[in-house]
Amino acid sequence: MSHPGADRVREVARLAGRSARSRRRAFLAEGPQAVREALRRHRAGNRTVEQVFATDDALARHPELGEPADGVVLRRVTSEVLAAMSDTVTPQGVVAVCRMVDVGLDEVLAGDPRLIAVLCQVRDPGNAGTVLRAADAAGADAVILTRGSVDLYNPKTVRSTVGSLFHLPVVLGVPFAGLADRLRASAVTLLAADGYGSTDLDALQDAAAARRLIRRETAAAPTEGLALEAPTAWLFGNEAHGLAEDERSAAHARVRVPVYGAAESLNVGTAATVCLYASARAQRR
Amino acid sequence: MSHPGADRVREVARLAGRSARSRRRAFLAEGPQAVREALRRHRAGNRTVEQVFATDDALARHPELGEPADGVVLRRVTSEVLAAMSDTVTPQGVVAVCRMVDVGLDEVLAGDPRLIAVLCQVRDPGNAGTVLRAADAAGADAVILTRGSVDLYNPKTVRSTVGSLFHLPVVLGVPFAGLADRLRASAVTLLAADGYGSTDLDALQDAAAARRLIRRETAAAPTEGLALEAPTAWLFGNEAHGLAEDERSAAHARVRVPVYGAAESLNVGTAATVCLYASARAQRR
Repeated sequence: MSHPGADRVREVARLAGRSARSRRRAFLAEGPQAVREALRRHRAGNRTVEQVFATDDALARHPELGEPADGVVLRRVTSEVLAAMSDTVTPQGVVAVCRMVDVGLDEVLAGDPRLIAVLCQVRDPGNAGTVLRAADAAGADAVILTRGSVDLYNPKTVRSTVGSLFHLPVVLGVPFAGLADRLRASAVTLLAADGYGSTDLDALQDAAAARRLIRRETAAAPTEGLALEAPTAWLFGNEAHGLAEDERSAAHARVRVPVYGAAESLNVGTAATVCLYASARAQRR
Repeated sequence: MSHPGADRVREVARLAGRSARSRRRAFLAEGPQAVREALRRHRAGNRTVEQVFATDDALARHPELGEPADGVVLRRVTSEVLAAMSDTVTPQGVVAVCRMVDVGLDEVLAGDPRLIAVLCQVRDPGNAGTVLRAADAAGADAVILTRGSVDLYNPKTVRSTVGSLFHLPVVLGVPFAGLADRLRASAVTLLAADGYGSTDLDALQDAAAARRLIRRETAAAPTEGLALEAPTAWLFGNEAHGLAEDERSAAHARVRVPVYGAAESLNVGTAATVCLYASARAQRR
């Protein structure tokens, strides 16, 4: 049994820092929900989890976390050891050392993605987590973080995704210019979420709803122009400055989420939720 | 000029606590954006702001905060005094002592509301703020917090609304049972946002979109059954436990926001955003 000052404990605790994560290509998932989702991904054939550290109490409450998984080492530890390993004040009795899960852009594009969320220099861990979770709920095929965005493997970001980072492919550190070219070359429409955009999201949704109704009545009608049904990458900007000029101008359209009330603007998580759900609704048939 | 230990400074600082707020029927708005929105509400004829405390630096950067407003006392203070008054580490040079802005349920119902967000025992300040901000953006007529919900005037909640609490009527501390009766008596449809609900939000949206298209072609068609166009109150539940059984069973329908991906559930802010925007879209014509 380890004690809180042991080498192994310190090595896990160091994963709270970026340099240790880069060196080991590993990060920490904390709490039962995140560890459960990591193990699920692992059991589905994507080697994800290296080690699970859990208290007896946590294993009694969540027995599925203690079930054997191929190549995963389970270690029982005291709550003191767990607290010393964890970035969280209350890690709820379990943490896992996970291999980094990000994939390459080629892999994502090879899968003919229909819906992608691109975080353009989004810096706040909570916002990144909210967008990733919304992308997961909306059934997006991937989330891409451009160079200069928050570190996905930062414990704060990992926590705020509530397990969603184990659900869908994530691409990290992509320079924006090359990304836009690749997406356009793959016939993906780039829509910039922009409070000052000239295209109204409601108009796009109305048009998509009309096409859907017509298709029910007649044969499938070909779609011209901007259509939410088309493969789409949404660009979401930095929380303080929005999208940069080069990001906005690379898009096929700048789309405004309508604000019906007196709110000055939407936060990036709210805007992303509305945009991604609008696309998901339009694409689902 | 005050110093950080002066009585007046301590009196303002005490507004971080619930008992001082109740006694004085006042609370603190911190930072330029919140103070600007409070002053805007005040100038629109709703007495809101009692005192503004600002550093010279903040007034130079935001001169509109120093413009005279009827009955508002402006006091220039040092950044040390401001820090001593404020709950925030970085109050950005300005705080305002505001009168509580909540209104009674009667007042809201007298205005024939079309869209209301009801927070049922939502406890997290950040979640409450996100829902209030989404309600504001969606043009809701009011937000109601049931008894047992987070304190709206807690500095954390005030901050997370980013000024939206000054934009639309908020009703506080309403016992749920009486609220449901009053809403039903006012012909407001109660929709419970419930991950296990049997009514799909997409189906409601499809039906509303179809009716909208038909109305364009023909005369206005009367609407039967559950319709997003009807005056609606959305019920959003506690972040850990969801809606309680009495809350769910008081609703006309339990509505599920579709999850297209692998996400287990939506957080209350995301669900509220999707639901309120769906209603706003359906109602806007």
